[in-house]
Amino acid sequence: MAHQPYGSPDSLYEPIRYINELGGKRIRPILLLMAYNLYQEDVTPALPAAMAVEYFHNFSLMHDDIMDEAPLRRGKETVHQKFSRNAAILSGDAMLIRCFELLLQAGERNGVGAQLSILMSKASLEICEGQQMDMDFEKIESPTEAEYLEVIRKKTSCLFGVSLELGAILAGAPEMDCRALYSFGEYIGLGFQIQDDYLDVFGETVLTGKQKGGDILQGKKNFPYVHTYNKLSPPDRKEFAHQYTLAAHHQEIDHVLSFYENQNVASYVLKKQKDYLHQAMNALEGMDPEKMNGLVSFVQSLVQREF
Amino acid sequence: MAHQPYGSPDSLYEPIRYINELGGKRIRPILLLMAYNLYQEDVTPALPAAMAVEYFHNFSLMHDDIMDEAPLRRGKETVHQKFSRNAAILSGDAMLIRCFELLLQAGERNGVGAQLSILMSKASLEICEGQQMDMDFEKIESPTEAEYLEVIRKKTSCLFGVSLELGAILAGAPEMDCRALYSFGEYIGLGFQIQDDYLDVFGETVLTGKQKGGDILQGKKNFPYVHTYNKLSPPDRKEFAHQYTLAAHHQEIDHVLSFYENQNVASYVLKKQKDYLHQAMNALEGMDPEKMNGLVSFVQSLVQREF
Repeated sequence: MAHQPYGSPDSLYEPIRYINELGGKRIRPILLLMAYNLYQEDVTPALPAAMAVEYFHNFSLMHDDIMDEAPLRRGKETVHQKFSRNAAILSGDAMLIRCFELLLQAGERNGVGAQLSILMSKASLEICEGQQMDMDFEKIESPTEAEYLEVIRKKTSCLFGVSLELGAILAGAPEMDCRALYSFGEYIGLGFQIQDDYLDVFGETVLTGKQKGGDILQGKKNFPYVHTYNKLSPPDRKEFAHQYTLAAHHQEIDHVLSFYENQNVASYVLKKQKDYLHQAMNALEGMDPEKMNGLVSFVQSLVQREF
Repeated sequence: MAHQPYGSPDSLYEPIRYINELGGKRIRPILLLMAYNLYQEDVTPALPAAMAVEYFHNFSLMHDDIMDEAPLRRGKETVHQKFSRNAAILSGDAMLIRCFELLLQAGERNGVGAQLSILMSKASLEICEGQQMDMDFEKIESPTEAEYLEVIRKKTSCLFGVSLELGAILAGAPEMDCRALYSFGEYIGLGFQIQDDYLDVFGETVLTGKQKGGDILQGKKNFPYVHTYNKLSPPDRKEFAHQYTLAAHHQEIDHVLSFYENQNVASYVLKKQKDYLHQAMNALEGMDPEKMNGLVSFVQSLVQREF
């Protein structure tokens, strides 16, 4: 996304350029373009929409990083750290607005701008709700697994689904396909986030480039935590929650890991993740499997990634 | 706007309800409805669009108040003060999104949703640019009058213009009328903001309900400051800027007021404000003057208000 024209004043647009050029996996625009490409050979007309979902994603990172007081993002300083908190607030706002502008531009050619934007606005509200639930979540000791999954469905999966659906709508796909791709993306998003949580605890630092047990060290309740907590008997839950707090306090994850080992958390997470991949595939029933090969192998590599 | 359904979780929607119910003059939705009403008898179909511009306005207040660290808004605690900074960031984001959603809904009936939203997105970006310029502005000693006016054009006037234009488009007005109303609104917005700055310095506290010279006491460079600064000779400028800083420091505005008196600032501001009203009226040339009576007398009362 380098070399695209940004506006003025620099103080507003420089943080936007900075976060856009930080890199990242570009998963959401790739999903959008792959969905579009199922129906249209040349993906050029979908590029503004692809940029729109990446703008949305980066907007949400910029604001979430302020809220979480995160110093680093993708190994570099976060925007509020490098520029200022005010810059991160206002440039984030501008990115959210630009997301809608880009979608409307993308949809102008075939008159689907309003449809794309309504879909995006509904998804965006869900994502805000997910972020709020995630913050509220940190204050309760005993979330259920279903509650946790609902948070990540809103916070993460929703944008996976919507990226695919936007691409399909823009390409003029049948409505049934659009809905199916949304549903497919939602399951993939769940699998993706659970894998994220898995890698945090069980991943190889050499591969992930992240500190092992980062969530534990920050006291962040992820999927392994929630699953383990709910599997334990009430007295053990108390002890486990206590150990989780101590782990963050002493910066020492071994006690927590031994709980995970006793509860076979790793294999449960992997099973759960496979279930989601399976459900995702089911959502595509009725669509031409051969046409789907590229998309399916891409999302498999995403969900089963080692880094 | 009470009694409308809000969503869940409460922690996201409660700050939105709070700021919506704080009151305010509701100028922007009124302008939108009056523009609509120039072409359509029943304004009911325009209500979601009217809400959209008020949502936008309140979103920008919520985020601006964080950036300015303002403790009070409309005599009550600001959102970041009453709830939390994170709540004000995220609930503000949700209001911005809801603004687009409402506009798209409003435009669905006659297929102008995309047109309304594109206009809004372009204006919204200008407003962000204006807010950033306003913050940058505080760091320079010697802005020109033209620079100051460009900031308030973007930060304030733009939304006046766009509210009128959105109402006109939604009502199916001819394109020339839509543009004329935008231009009219822009001039009104400039007059409105200059009056705001005027009242801050020369208004009667009994009428405004605000502390006399609030901008001076906060060291905020408003229109009287910028005009005076640029009228003075270079050595006097230095002294004036120094006195302005001291005024904030000592919480004592008399020295600054004597500069304003010597430079006849009050009468200059009033003249400037009349110029804008005049230019606003010129923008309406070609439109039926009788039809415009209600709108014109409303904006006159806005620009020439005493509180």
